Amino acid sequence: MGNVRVIKIKESVFADNDFLAQEIRTKLKEQGTLFLNVMSGPGSGKTTFLSNLINQLKDCMRIGEMDVDIETSLDAQKVSDLTGVKSLQIHNDGLCHIDADMVSRALLEYETENLDLLILENIGNLVCPAEFDTGAHKNIMLLSVPEGDDKPLKYPLMFQMCDLVLINKMDTISYFDFDYDLVKSRILKLNSEAKILPISAKTGEGMEKVIDWIFQCKKELAK
Amino acid sequence: MGNVRVIKIKESVFADNDFLAQEIRTKLKEQGTLFLNVMSGPGSGKTTFLSNLINQLKDCMRIGEMDVDIETSLDAQKVSDLTGVKSLQIHNDGLCHIDADMVSRALLEYETENLDLLILENIGNLVCPAEFDTGAHKNIMLLSVPEGDDKPLKYPLMFQMCDLVLINKMDTISYFDFDYDLVKSRILKLNSEAKILPISAKTGEGMEKVIDWIFQCKKELAK
Repeated sequence: MGNVRVIKIKESVFADNDFLAQEIRTKLKEQGTLFLNVMSGPGSGKTTFLSNLINQLKDCMRIGEMDVDIETSLDAQKVSDLTGVKSLQIHNDGLCHIDADMVSRALLEYETENLDLLILENIGNLVCPAEFDTGAHKNIMLLSVPEGDDKPLKYPLMFQMCDLVLINKMDTISYFDFDYDLVKSRILKLNSEAKILPISAKTGEGMEKVIDWIFQCKKELAK
Repeated sequence: MGNVRVIKIKESVFADNDFLAQEIRTKLKEQGTLFLNVMSGPGSGKTTFLSNLINQLKDCMRIGEMDVDIETSLDAQKVSDLTGVKSLQIHNDGLCHIDADMVSRALLEYETENLDLLILENIGNLVCPAEFDTGAHKNIMLLSVPEGDDKPLKYPLMFQMCDLVLINKMDTISYFDFDYDLVKSRILKLNSEAKILPISAKTGEGMEKVIDWIFQCKKELAK
């Protein structure tokens, strides 16, 4: 019985969330701000990736970054230090995901009207963040080589709902049992529309293709 | 208002869970079964670690293994194939943690009376599993070198509630910016009682100390 009650609340939470997420998406599209939600497990390299990306884009785009962490402001500080871009830390009181309501409240505190690009660095977790629409126009996930090529089999929802899957830490592939072609076929089986790119956020390998993809998304948004 | 309602349910869920967890712990202690809960982020090497551990212990202990995954039976199958020990897969319908009720239901299906050691391989997640007492006598977590030495700062609850923290994939430390002494001091600051051991589940480095620790726990349980 307890389970039924919890599930009903969960359904209603999801419905409210989807409505609010759509509102965020529409508002940001109207003002020309591309909103990207970046997800991964812990330690996959999100912060290094975003620092690298923002540094390459900041001269041609006005960028805002929202960082989510359970307890610290470490990532927000790091991104801000490395890029000079203004970064806003969202503390989510120990929750395991970010939903549209949290994004919406952060947007109230944050001037986004003049931004070309707004990036949300989600919580390091392959389960819960995949369940909540944040209002982003596109979802990106990072899977790092040391995590293993079986992850699409074990966390399918995350791979199903992402537009871009980045295989990160490619510079370490010779030290791990990781089959790039196998992981690619496993992802495409779950999500035939997914764009998959091998990168190393640390060395910069493959980042130019990520930047091309972002410019393509900007064009689509303007349609 | 929505938040308040959810939080109240959460408190009641936690209270029920703690009561049931204590019952599991007492029952398993009485029958002489040491129950270990093993947690980590995705891809930290739990399955490789457990296969290695069980292979070293199976000739001197009767071991059962419970494996939790959202969608697949991959890990249960892998542990079973590699060790020959009977492994039970718990599918948790997309939830992000395992609680005492799920363990309790699994125990009903599973004969544990003759076991010396029962191991739960939790879901790959550094957030949610730390919040739910599973009824285990001891909690173990793996942090792998590629995940980075900042993880205790970012997921403090997980480090606070573990008795043994294993720093895994030590064979790859020269390829990553990972400061072992720093991570150790960060963990001890959160949890001065934690035992911290460097290992490589893949090469077997450091596994003998994990086995010593398990024998020590068996002795404590028999007191």
